[in-house]
Amino acid sequence: MRILVPFEAVDPKTRLGEVLDADERDDVARAMLRDVIDACLDAGHDPEVVATAPVEVADAPVTVDDRPLSAAVNARLGGTTPLGVVVADLALATAGAVDRLVDAAADADVAVAPGRAGGTNGLVIDHRDFRVDFHGVSYRDHVAAARAVGADVAVVDSMRLSTDVDEPTDLAEVLLHGEGEAAAWLGKRFELDTGEGRVGIDRVG
Amino acid sequence: MRILVPFEAVDPKTRLGEVLDADERDDVARAMLRDVIDACLDAGHDPEVVATAPVEVADAPVTVDDRPLSAAVNARLGGTTPLGVVVADLALATAGAVDRLVDAAADADVAVAPGRAGGTNGLVIDHRDFRVDFHGVSYRDHVAAARAVGADVAVVDSMRLSTDVDEPTDLAEVLLHGEGEAAAWLGKRFELDTGEGRVGIDRVG
Repeated sequence: MRILVPFEAVDPKTRLGEVLDADERDDVARAMLRDVIDACLDAGHDPEVVATAPVEVADAPVTVDDRPLSAAVNARLGGTTPLGVVVADLALATAGAVDRLVDAAADADVAVAPGRAGGTNGLVIDHRDFRVDFHGVSYRDHVAAARAVGADVAVVDSMRLSTDVDEPTDLAEVLLHGEGEAAAWLGKRFELDTGEGRVGIDRVG
Repeated sequence: MRILVPFEAVDPKTRLGEVLDADERDDVARAMLRDVIDACLDAGHDPEVVATAPVEVADAPVTVDDRPLSAAVNARLGGTTPLGVVVADLALATAGAVDRLVDAAADADVAVAPGRAGGTNGLVIDHRDFRVDFHGVSYRDHVAAARAVGADVAVVDSMRLSTDVDEPTDLAEVLLHGEGEAAAWLGKRFELDTGEGRVGIDRVG
């Protein structure tokens, strides 16, 4: 299946600025993109990066589209074949998790993988009239939008797909559960902080 | 399958104190326990509450055991039949999610459902020598402990099982994805705060 992977190529992951400098944010964003692309490829799909600026990605075509995320995705919807969308900051993504999203769409017009805090981290769309809107509480909005056009919805219950990496605490999840490039990148620089309360991260050395 | 559900019956969910008073924390903790019990029952299993003090729970036996969580669970391990453990604050638990945990144990000696931030929210143990330790980064510790006794491990990738409710931001997940008593309780008193940044909750009225 064709799977779009929208990527913010300019000043990505600003909310990680508290623990990573600008170059590091670039590095980790590209590593996470790599992990998502690899998960899609390993699951036998055809990922396509839709980036806000040119970016080099091995083994996947890149299209530059400087429109906002939702507009860039919607410009590619409306066809007659199912189309996947997976956000680029899923550092825990695996082929198995991508498979579950795609499999969920077998019995539904729209499959949704919710992100934490109301976001949407993955979609498979097999309905000509469904459009995305990633702004706000997009999970709830996408379920409502699907119903509004008469599309059946399947929801995928995946921690890996729900864990988009936006904030420093999310980096702990990458150290704990990541298996790809982002986890390797992070593991060279940070370790888990297992002090009081919820686990965090500390810079190594 | 017999599934233990450890429950802190005295002053539960202290980290929710920022948004809920003591009576409310009692109420929501009991509603979440109800949801976990119902998910186990609906999946055809036999939940047993292991509580730190007497608590009334319909349709499930309650044993009072005032030892710390890990000691209370370990006192019940070592038998020859598989035993489940599911924490009591999984307000998003469903029969389907419990099924996935139990199914994962079919091909492994220990099935683990990781919680956010390194916790462990569910286990199915089918190995006489495995013991639990819920302190600290227990997910990593449980995987290591299983390997140390030669037990195969299966990890369950479930957002529902990973979402234990400890902090105010977790309550937003209950409003978004909960289907049981805790979501109903919360929905009467709070609504999603869809302002800037990650979604939160606001008291209604």
